[in-house]
Amino acid sequence: MTVPSQTIGIAGAGAWGTALANAAAAAGNDVVLWMRSAEQADALAATRTNERCLPGIALHERITPTADLSELAASRAVLLVTPAQTTREVTAALASVLPVAAPLVLCAKGIERGSGAFLCDVVKEERPGAPVAVLSGPSFAHDVARGLPTAVTLACRDAGLAEELANALSGPTFRVYHRGDVRGVEIGGAAKNVLAIACGAVAGRGLGESAKAALIARGFAELLRFARAYDGEPETLMGLSGLGDLVLTCSTAQSRNFAFGQRLGQGLSVEEAAGGKLVEGATTASALVALARAKNIDMPIAEAVEQILSGAWTLDQAVDALMNRPIKSEH
Amino acid sequence: MTVPSQTIGIAGAGAWGTALANAAAAAGNDVVLWMRSAEQADALAATRTNERCLPGIALHERITPTADLSELAASRAVLLVTPAQTTREVTAALASVLPVAAPLVLCAKGIERGSGAFLCDVVKEERPGAPVAVLSGPSFAHDVARGLPTAVTLACRDAGLAEELANALSGPTFRVYHRGDVRGVEIGGAAKNVLAIACGAVAGRGLGESAKAALIARGFAELLRFARAYDGEPETLMGLSGLGDLVLTCSTAQSRNFAFGQRLGQGLSVEEAAGGKLVEGATTASALVALARAKNIDMPIAEAVEQILSGAWTLDQAVDALMNRPIKSEH
Repeated sequence: MTVPSQTIGIAGAGAWGTALANAAAAAGNDVVLWMRSAEQADALAATRTNERCLPGIALHERITPTADLSELAASRAVLLVTPAQTTREVTAALASVLPVAAPLVLCAKGIERGSGAFLCDVVKEERPGAPVAVLSGPSFAHDVARGLPTAVTLACRDAGLAEELANALSGPTFRVYHRGDVRGVEIGGAAKNVLAIACGAVAGRGLGESAKAALIARGFAELLRFARAYDGEPETLMGLSGLGDLVLTCSTAQSRNFAFGQRLGQGLSVEEAAGGKLVEGATTASALVALARAKNIDMPIAEAVEQILSGAWTLDQAVDALMNRPIKSEH
Repeated sequence: MTVPSQTIGIAGAGAWGTALANAAAAAGNDVVLWMRSAEQADALAATRTNERCLPGIALHERITPTADLSELAASRAVLLVTPAQTTREVTAALASVLPVAAPLVLCAKGIERGSGAFLCDVVKEERPGAPVAVLSGPSFAHDVARGLPTAVTLACRDAGLAEELANALSGPTFRVYHRGDVRGVEIGGAAKNVLAIACGAVAGRGLGESAKAALIARGFAELLRFARAYDGEPETLMGLSGLGDLVLTCSTAQSRNFAFGQRLGQGLSVEEAAGGKLVEGATTASALVALARAKNIDMPIAEAVEQILSGAWTLDQAVDALMNRPIKSEH
């Protein structure tokens, strides 16, 4: 299927937004890359690189940086790549410039604090009747930007639109697979950040690779239970956006959530470990655990992360609690 | 449940056999550790350490090393921890000294070359009517031996026996969960070594962590398809012995299969990469692919590994073949 040249909008020019802009341009689209700061947009236009967020990577020639949101108005679709907790605000702003027929593709992962709402529901509230999709999967910005092979999932209830968007964004090294199960992709993306904190803590505490692998397997079982209770499809969780992203996020300190957990494991306080930076998994943990409790879903690892973050348990108490569960049948 | 002191036999004193001997002793059992070489048994008895395979780790005082197979005769159960391809020979030898009521717990992973038989079936042929169990999970010998937290699965068709053995082998840091699905555990253990070669090749070729995570997710889907076709339970594959062991084996060069793949990725030939050592995944690959073809199971990653090992494809041809599959719905 050949896709005619068209404009893809990207809202947010962090590392991931910039990498996605390059990928979308390499796939044959014109790209408008929006960021809040006019100064930053000018710098990107002048230097053709995003030195602060994605140093050393040249911006594709088909990318136009801008700080004017209205320049996204003619986009075939807009990828929303701002932090999870800004989703409501940015969507509301986009609603005032974008035609209602233009789909928004959510690329952040998390659950809204306060409301406990999944991000797609936030978008639907702010842009009623507009199509929404989610893009998620194992993809470090630097890997995508360097043209290393990556594969992600794009989910949209409208199967035709999912396929069209997946084809429009797929290039020779960045492969986009499509699915219908938006909720399952959202759950995988949000919950894996919480599990990554636990994996980081195990690594930071020096508990070994075997313990970390067991934690990933047991954590994946929690994720599946949660997805079943909240209408995600198990198959989605077993795919790129669930298992794939979980494995990536739990395996290296390149992941901010894993690095945060690692510092907790080394004995730093929650404040010290965060170092003033946004850790999506930490903001998601309490919302995730509250949703789990509301439906009586057994999630001991997510609970342990929440207990550590709230100061109720020390790390050693959490490890003891997980290790001393009674020996029983595996499921 | 308290378990009375009893004797556990271990056949095979490599790193894993020695680590399991220590774990079984720490769990409160007397342990007889059998190895072929009388010289090695004498050295272990004299130095109370297995310097060749597990250096720096003290042998638990309740372990008795021996080169006399008949000393295993009084064991409540024997753990078989010799290389997969020796399973038939060692089982036949054990059959001549062990009462038929004593269960054999398979700890090697693989498929028998030539026959294409799962190892449990090999054991059943050599000891008809005797109980057989499988122990598998994410557990590096050094992690278990150092007392780091580890969790594994023990599967046996006889649920009561599975529970008894799991309890007998579980200690404060080595946790054994039980299941009924022997076939599922065997499939996970055998197939993950093949996928580990692919992951190692991706790492050795410098394709990045994102590509490796995608490969693990897509490989896991292959594993599930294979298990469904060969009567393994999907839940088993999602557990410690499936997903957990897959993640561990695919994440570090501590795994021999991963390290072998890594050397292939760096451009070494199959012979050079193996370096004269036994690589279970390489001996399993062709048997696995033959079983998959026999039931028309789509396993492109396992196929790619087999094509590389047989010399039909170069590594780059394999990567191209995997990357250039048509963009489609994810499952």
